Amino acid sequence: MSKYHSQILNDVVEELTKLPSIGRKSALRLALHLVYQKKDDLTDLSRAIEALRDKLLKCERCNNISDTPVCAVCTDTSRTSDVLCVVESIRDLIAIEETEQYHGKYYVLSGLISPIEGIGPEELRLHRLQELVVENEVKELVLAVSPTFEGDTTVFYISKMLKDYEVRITTLARGVSFGSELEYTDEITLGRSLQARVPYDHVFKNDRV
Amino acid sequence: MSKYHSQILNDVVEELTKLPSIGRKSALRLALHLVYQKKDDLTDLSRAIEALRDKLLKCERCNNISDTPVCAVCTDTSRTSDVLCVVESIRDLIAIEETEQYHGKYYVLSGLISPIEGIGPEELRLHRLQELVVENEVKELVLAVSPTFEGDTTVFYISKMLKDYEVRITTLARGVSFGSELEYTDEITLGRSLQARVPYDHVFKNDRV
Repeated sequence: MSKYHSQILNDVVEELTKLPSIGRKSALRLALHLVYQKKDDLTDLSRAIEALRDKLLKCERCNNISDTPVCAVCTDTSRTSDVLCVVESIRDLIAIEETEQYHGKYYVLSGLISPIEGIGPEELRLHRLQELVVENEVKELVLAVSPTFEGDTTVFYISKMLKDYEVRITTLARGVSFGSELEYTDEITLGRSLQARVPYDHVFKNDRV
Repeated sequence: MSKYHSQILNDVVEELTKLPSIGRKSALRLALHLVYQKKDDLTDLSRAIEALRDKLLKCERCNNISDTPVCAVCTDTSRTSDVLCVVESIRDLIAIEETEQYHGKYYVLSGLISPIEGIGPEELRLHRLQELVVENEVKELVLAVSPTFEGDTTVFYISKMLKDYEVRITTLARGVSFGSELEYTDEITLGRSLQARVPYDHVFKNDRV
């Protein structure tokens, strides 16, 4: 930045540049936008960030973010407790919630097993998942993690850990995305969706969990 | 947003959505990024915004944003005071500074004359510009405003206001952009750049103001 820039403006630009997918130019544009806002609007923004810092909790039960010690999903008695969906992150939990197709509970992992990074089952506290399965007499565990090496390892570990319990373990169906064209679908996805082909009328059943 | 969302997270998403070119999805992504940041980083961000709110000043002389009553451009004695560049916004001032081709001073207008919106010369306090021209014995006034109806009206008014003073009034050259292709240049720009054609060797002179 030029020596003529305001240091106060610069500080805001620096902080905004730390956000994902916000480069220097976008950060400057956002900072200049803030310069022209009312003082109250800037107060609202900084207070919202401070509340995130000071008041946001992690749900004691499922690790979801929450305003209360136990989150709104876990306390909702209209949702079934015997289906538990295991996700890698809050973002994935929100993505699944937005489909409105799932009405069980969740368990948010604090990562995936990664021997290279030294993250094992203890670091992820996977025994807590086991406790939850026992406590809630979970009948189905939906493992909704990424189909990567780390994801597959984690799924394998969890399925072994729970092999002596009466819990059905499922994963998300892999297949051709809605709206995508066959010729642009990668071979593995297309191959798996052929292996896992379903009767035509199944597609229209709106089976909710 | 779903009833399961954290209100604290929601508030951050709401505030971020008010920023330009940040939609709901981007705001959620940014807010979730913040959730995973260290408390100190969130403090830095909210403090930078509060400093912007509480400490950023408007330069008494040129209306630039400044950390001090008179800005760094105005106090720099190595810059000539007898050339004054009139811009519409801080963003335009920064854009001109980044070219490193200008070494005079600035005057930032608080807008453009717009009869439809009831903004006249008094609202823009254009008499202050006149005072500056007199006080600093300005020899050249570079009117670097947008070539719009409001911009042209403002330029016309300023040139009339200063017609009895010995000040040369110039505007930015209009022409074909660097790197652009002639066939995609609009007719008016192409027409004007033909009318204002320059001798070939002029282009390589690096005349700085």
